[in-house]
Amino acid sequence: MTAFEELMAYQRETEALGQIMGRLGWDQETVMPAGAAEQRAEEMAALDSVLHRRRTDPRIGEWLEQAVPEDDAGKRQVEKIHRRFERTQRVPEALSAALARTTSLAHRVWAEARATNDFALFAPKLTEVLDLSREKAAALADGGNLYDALADDYEPGITEGELEAMFNALRPRLVALRERVMGSERTVPTLGTTFSEDGQLALSAELARAFGYNTEHGRIDKAVHPFSSGSGLDVRITTRTMPDDPFNCFYSTIHEVGHGCYEQNIDTAYLLTPLGRGVSMGVHESQSRIYENQLGRSRAFSSWLFQRMTDTFGDFGIGDAETFYAVTNRCAAGHIRTEADEVHYNLHIALRFDLERDLIAGRLEVPDLPEAWNARFESDFGLKVDTPANGVLQDVHWSEALFGYFPTYTLGNVYAGCLHAALRRDVPDLDRDLARSDTSAATDWLREKVQRFGGLYEPKDLIERATGLAPSEGPLLDYLDAKFGDIYGV
Amino acid sequence: MTAFEELMAYQRETEALGQIMGRLGWDQETVMPAGAAEQRAEEMAALDSVLHRRRTDPRIGEWLEQAVPEDDAGKRQVEKIHRRFERTQRVPEALSAALARTTSLAHRVWAEARATNDFALFAPKLTEVLDLSREKAAALADGGNLYDALADDYEPGITEGELEAMFNALRPRLVALRERVMGSERTVPTLGTTFSEDGQLALSAELARAFGYNTEHGRIDKAVHPFSSGSGLDVRITTRTMPDDPFNCFYSTIHEVGHGCYEQNIDTAYLLTPLGRGVSMGVHESQSRIYENQLGRSRAFSSWLFQRMTDTFGDFGIGDAETFYAVTNRCAAGHIRTEADEVHYNLHIALRFDLERDLIAGRLEVPDLPEAWNARFESDFGLKVDTPANGVLQDVHWSEALFGYFPTYTLGNVYAGCLHAALRRDVPDLDRDLARSDTSAATDWLREKVQRFGGLYEPKDLIERATGLAPSEGPLLDYLDAKFGDIYGV
Repeated sequence: MTAFEELMAYQRETEALGQIMGRLGWDQETVMPAGAAEQRAEEMAALDSVLHRRRTDPRIGEWLEQAVPEDDAGKRQVEKIHRRFERTQRVPEALSAALARTTSLAHRVWAEARATNDFALFAPKLTEVLDLSREKAAALADGGNLYDALADDYEPGITEGELEAMFNALRPRLVALRERVMGSERTVPTLGTTFSEDGQLALSAELARAFGYNTEHGRIDKAVHPFSSGSGLDVRITTRTMPDDPFNCFYSTIHEVGHGCYEQNIDTAYLLTPLGRGVSMGVHESQSRIYENQLGRSRAFSSWLFQRMTDTFGDFGIGDAETFYAVTNRCAAGHIRTEADEVHYNLHIALRFDLERDLIAGRLEVPDLPEAWNARFESDFGLKVDTPANGVLQDVHWSEALFGYFPTYTLGNVYAGCLHAALRRDVPDLDRDLARSDTSAATDWLREKVQRFGGLYEPKDLIERATGLAPSEGPLLDYLDAKFGDIYGV
Repeated sequence: MTAFEELMAYQRETEALGQIMGRLGWDQETVMPAGAAEQRAEEMAALDSVLHRRRTDPRIGEWLEQAVPEDDAGKRQVEKIHRRFERTQRVPEALSAALARTTSLAHRVWAEARATNDFALFAPKLTEVLDLSREKAAALADGGNLYDALADDYEPGITEGELEAMFNALRPRLVALRERVMGSERTVPTLGTTFSEDGQLALSAELARAFGYNTEHGRIDKAVHPFSSGSGLDVRITTRTMPDDPFNCFYSTIHEVGHGCYEQNIDTAYLLTPLGRGVSMGVHESQSRIYENQLGRSRAFSSWLFQRMTDTFGDFGIGDAETFYAVTNRCAAGHIRTEADEVHYNLHIALRFDLERDLIAGRLEVPDLPEAWNARFESDFGLKVDTPANGVLQDVHWSEALFGYFPTYTLGNVYAGCLHAALRRDVPDLDRDLARSDTSAATDWLREKVQRFGGLYEPKDLIERATGLAPSEGPLLDYLDAKFGDIYGV
């Protein structure tokens, strides 16, 4: 075997073990017996340490020096392995282990703190996580920007400066749109009845099929927090049901189907290689959001959903498809990011981005975080934060040291805006199809232009190749202005 | 850390990874998407190779040399690690890999051969598996008995000679009983109606609870072939349903509950150590069989089951509890081992034991196997074998190189006989409890006398400690004679 072949064979085993780790996570959130948590933690720690040893194995360095890839994909594989190897090597093993241990504990403490609305309980652990994260960032950045160094794990190549510029471009028009919508005299009703779980799950499965999710290589289960997991031939998604909010189920499903289809549609030539996974969190989120919002919450598709909900649940108090369209897009200032409408969503992210870069830069201390959160939230949303669970304790991310992750949600929305504009240009009759739940023209376009490439191109290049234009905030903002201006008559 | 502590810490990680392997197997048989098989095979191969490397790591040898265990349990841990390490080292890595590869292929070919009733398709692969198994046996036996060397994987310390003596002791009385029962003028009816899946599964869950299975540390799913999987805090079982045979569901459940409770009831001090698993296949099977047969198919317990089936399904054509008791114990000569009644079961095993030791000794060649099987079967059961799927192709074991495994089923029955006799002696009022589905006196006894010890004692010692007598065939034969003599009036 050549050095390149040896490197790829070794990497393939590592990728396979990484898939097993994902499967254990899936198992834990869907089917694991409650009393198995302690043992599962040990199982995952054992596998994690196997993975860590593999990823720092000095043979990788030797193979990398000698590897001569045969084609562009091979070059890209080597580049990705190289990048990961260098990053892994820069973080001392003791620091890596301390982060793993501390986040595992911090996650539990966060859950308890959120349940009891007690930020003080969480603060010491969060301080530990933050200190270790800054230490890790310093090791990775090697004198450069700390935030860049952390964000690179989720969005390779992104910088704090680019993210700042993105939010600066979004903010004025989002704020203006929010003010117009909130000041509108039109009121959009809410659902005032309950919906059977069986009906929700059946329609959820129908939605997954309609958006092209392949259950030959996946399955749909219930979980407290919906997620997708796995790559290649085994990509599973989850959803949840709430009696009075079927949209939570339906749009969680469509969102996760977007993530799942991205993984399912990657060229199988890349199976169990670094190119065989979605290229970044931002691009991943662009797929889940375009499925969920630009397609799933479009007037055309919602007209079909209105019909199917009426078939399934009978009259549920919404008189016509046009009102239903407004209901699925109803805007309201609320505390919780994951329940936010499209107008408010990115303002939630902007808040987190600014706070977390202040934390990483040392401009903000953990004890001052709740006050900073509450002040910013009230200023942006016109609402007081009533309890920590509705404020600074609502998200799991920081307990898991995921600093640099939040902005990829907004980046995903921006990318989705770009892709949607190009899709509409290339498929002018799309609404005719969507109105009968045929998403194939859209999902085929996304598969061809984005999904099949896996990790072959850098995120920004991928979006530019797909759309013909460098990514920018304009298309998302234009889409939001047009859609919500129309719905709210503003 | 002392050498002993280092050894145990290392072993603990290996055990945790072993548990993950079991979990992947569970996933594959219960929830895995059909199209994921190819990727799953790679995932399991990657984990298997991690486990193999860990088990042959030379540091184990160094730690073993220096380890000073602190107590008897520690001594036993070291002894078990030592035994495994020595065995693993004796088999050359190339042979180990060839066996893994060949059995993986052979398993698929066997499944196809069974589906198409084509032994010739399977014969070349089985020959390969047999040749490699004999090679492995020779490496392990180091001049000693080949069959002993293989059987040791499933029943540590057992010899071909002991197994032969066991079957010799069983055979005359089993054959005589079988002849009396088959010649009886009493006829036992069969069930002539169908039973809803929902009802079967609900009653199956009730049976699992009645026998003490703890779903806080386990769960029950459906699978094509029922099995139990996992040790410690996560022990899962499966069952299946057939519309016209609810006993298949109920007694599969009770059987797997026996396996599952054994694992669940091991002292948690042994969690993720070599002592934290059932000590041998024979002892494991003793638990599943005593739950299923001596308890679950007792007159007392079946009277309760009759009532619950009547509650669940209404009148199903069996007039009274006494007839129902006979129905649950109905004897019939049949081709399929897994469907055999208690009288016939061990004759199925005896046939396989004799054939497989002839194969391993080189006295029988694979091409002659079907004829040998069919002749022996007709002589023992008075029935011709109509198709290979009802004969030599029915069991998966040989395709997986599990030579030496079959006799542990009968050993389990013999152990169950011994334990049952001692249990009845210690708990004279047991039937009063069983008649109201209270199995706690029996399951508590088994937990205290057998299950909690995990791998602390050698199988035979464990049974002797539990019963006060060296294990022997007498109690099983006495139980069978009494039970079936009574049911069939012979």
